[in-house]
Amino acid sequence: LDSGHLIPVRNLLEELHSADIAHLLESTPPRVRNVIWQLLDKEREGDVLQHLNDEIRQNFIENMQPQELANALSDLDTDDVVDILGDLSNNVSNQVLRLLDEQNRALIEHALTYPEDTAGGLMNIDTIMIRPRVSVEVVLRYLRIRGSMPPNTDHLYVVNSRDVLIGSVPISSILTCDPDTSITQIVDEEMFTIPADMKDTEVAQIFERHDLVSAPVLDEEGRLLGRITIDDVVDVIREEADHSLMSMAGLDELADTFGPVMVTARKRAIWLGINLLTVILAALVIGIFESTIAKVTLLAVLLPIVPSMGGIAGTQTLTLVIRGMSLGHISDGNQSYLLKKELAVSVINGILWAITIASLVYAFSYYKESGVNHLHLAITIGGAMLINLVTGVLSGASIPLILKKLNIDPAIAGGVVLTTVTDVAGFFALLGLATYFFA
Amino acid sequence: LDSGHLIPVRNLLEELHSADIAHLLESTPPRVRNVIWQLLDKEREGDVLQHLNDEIRQNFIENMQPQELANALSDLDTDDVVDILGDLSNNVSNQVLRLLDEQNRALIEHALTYPEDTAGGLMNIDTIMIRPRVSVEVVLRYLRIRGSMPPNTDHLYVVNSRDVLIGSVPISSILTCDPDTSITQIVDEEMFTIPADMKDTEVAQIFERHDLVSAPVLDEEGRLLGRITIDDVVDVIREEADHSLMSMAGLDELADTFGPVMVTARKRAIWLGINLLTVILAALVIGIFESTIAKVTLLAVLLPIVPSMGGIAGTQTLTLVIRGMSLGHISDGNQSYLLKKELAVSVINGILWAITIASLVYAFSYYKESGVNHLHLAITIGGAMLINLVTGVLSGASIPLILKKLNIDPAIAGGVVLTTVTDVAGFFALLGLATYFFA
Repeated sequence: LDSGHLIPVRNLLEELHSADIAHLLESTPPRVRNVIWQLLDKEREGDVLQHLNDEIRQNFIENMQPQELANALSDLDTDDVVDILGDLSNNVSNQVLRLLDEQNRALIEHALTYPEDTAGGLMNIDTIMIRPRVSVEVVLRYLRIRGSMPPNTDHLYVVNSRDVLIGSVPISSILTCDPDTSITQIVDEEMFTIPADMKDTEVAQIFERHDLVSAPVLDEEGRLLGRITIDDVVDVIREEADHSLMSMAGLDELADTFGPVMVTARKRAIWLGINLLTVILAALVIGIFESTIAKVTLLAVLLPIVPSMGGIAGTQTLTLVIRGMSLGHISDGNQSYLLKKELAVSVINGILWAITIASLVYAFSYYKESGVNHLHLAITIGGAMLINLVTGVLSGASIPLILKKLNIDPAIAGGVVLTTVTDVAGFFALLGLATYFFA
Repeated sequence: LDSGHLIPVRNLLEELHSADIAHLLESTPPRVRNVIWQLLDKEREGDVLQHLNDEIRQNFIENMQPQELANALSDLDTDDVVDILGDLSNNVSNQVLRLLDEQNRALIEHALTYPEDTAGGLMNIDTIMIRPRVSVEVVLRYLRIRGSMPPNTDHLYVVNSRDVLIGSVPISSILTCDPDTSITQIVDEEMFTIPADMKDTEVAQIFERHDLVSAPVLDEEGRLLGRITIDDVVDVIREEADHSLMSMAGLDELADTFGPVMVTARKRAIWLGINLLTVILAALVIGIFESTIAKVTLLAVLLPIVPSMGGIAGTQTLTLVIRGMSLGHISDGNQSYLLKKELAVSVINGILWAITIASLVYAFSYYKESGVNHLHLAITIGGAMLINLVTGVLSGASIPLILKKLNIDPAIAGGVVLTTVTDVAGFFALLGLATYFFA
């Protein structure tokens, strides 16, 4: 592959599914990636693009001419075209739109009016609509004339003359019913419907909870606009779950594992810079107590223990709360129970580990004959441990709730705020108590 | 709700979907949870159980009589029954099995032989099988006699007389084809098939990549055993994504947000205990250099900075690699590129932040007239920063790869091993350099 024999690679590519080619591109370093992209059949570019991670796709699209991109997009579903065009600058996106054929253009321009993270941005317009007063036989004849059905069609939608959705008919009913049955007899009027302005994460929760394959999207008047299918919802679920994981480490959920060094280094530097500021803040707290440490240097040895434990306990709670919020488990009604429960948990663990570390430090300082009052030292670290575990857990539970109220993403900011709190509180508690006893 | 008026609650429950009741149970504290469960119609218990989180379900099941549980399970799909029985002790599970009716029991006993985390454990046995040499008309007549189809049926499976899978026919083809068409003309022989022993996470990747709604599961001889549907795959995707997030904080991915205090406290205590051991190790490293700190107490103030930055940089890489592994992006072929890229990124950021912190410390120590050689102090912290950022990033990239080779889950153990490495290396680098210059 590296040796320059490109023809076997091209043949291999021809045999792969587009989704597998996208996966291959995501798994290779940028240099190899570009070679594979060059070797790819022009007609398959659109199909591969729709399966690619946003960040990598952006790179390829930036190097394509509008005409080439328009050709690549012409065979895709509208929702995928909208997804791709939504990432482009208005200028480029308009150029490409002008090159698409008339009918598609109108549909896509309409779909582009919905924000990308709403049901409208997620929906496809390939619904099959039928009228209520026909028989199954008529529908079957219509479908045979139509000749094919859009992927993941599990329901036909029954609409009135103003396109208002009346109900849906599972295609399994069309198959299993007597041909003379009227659609009105088998229509399900209690299906799940999605308003066009619903957030995509809410849509995902509805699909996940009710095991849906597709659901109709309606405008405010109840008119059928399109439908959302499970394949797009799976992407939302994956992205949202990735978002919590990656954001907590200060990474973008779409980060390219094999991205170019300079781009990666710049993105990471920002996060490291923020962390440097918070840890300098913690260092300044230690600075306040420098004279105490000068008297009892053993304190310097004990310094990392308390903030570390508070950070760990707080991160556990923070992660649990962030997950609970993304699953929709946490509401105004149960927050106070959650805080009380976490407080109880932290007090229990605080007492347990305060006694443990106090005993260990007592024994250690006794054995080392360190010259300080062993009991006071034990009380200092034990007390600081209890204070900081409780602080950490309460912060872990309340920080995401507060950030959410302020419209700041808890997954991104929560960890930084939390460790700042546990570092500062931990050093203050330890060195403050030490100053009380020894200074 | 809290006031004891239970009849309106019972009426409300009757109107809710089972999946919504499960969600409600997951979002309430244990006491309220039990009241709701008592109010629930017995006939709906099974349906609600299948939608519940494992940990909460376990609690309810433990309080049910085998007969009650058997009744609750009798209306569920085999894969859901298998899922629930798999969590019980063998003894209870056998009791329940004996109470199920004959035919179901044989199927479920067979399905229980597959591990829960494989395709066999995920599959359902409700496939519709047809023969190749019949016409669409015959299939339609058969389906009408059958009267209904299993949920999420998007393909019929074509098998020969030994149940070996020949191919699949989309039900959309049955609908759109001329009734005289023979099945052999429209059968798709190149569908995705799943071996029964494939890992569930691999199954999820195939579904996700190829936008499948269902796929047939085959035994080693190619015989059709059952099928896997997207609703079960979505659960696997959600659980796997949750697993990475929760494990990195030492939590179980199925942890109950509102679980009882003592259970929660005990589980968290284990993780805190492990962390205490690692941070004591780090403290012992500081202990080695206590005499250096006694000479230059400003070092105590600077102590948290270097390990913290190394930990953050390492965690970023660790998270990226763990995500890349769970998406299947990282293989033996691209590991060395990944390591080289991460090394380059860490050297760039290491130099940047080494210069930054060295300048800050130089200015600070100059301003404070701390009495130590400003330049030496700056070189000490800058050098330690560079060493520890590179150590952190290289550890973050290599630890998960090594743990995976040892068959240890990187998401669980990775973070602990990483912070131990960055703490120990950070303190060694800082205090080692300081001892060289000042002791």
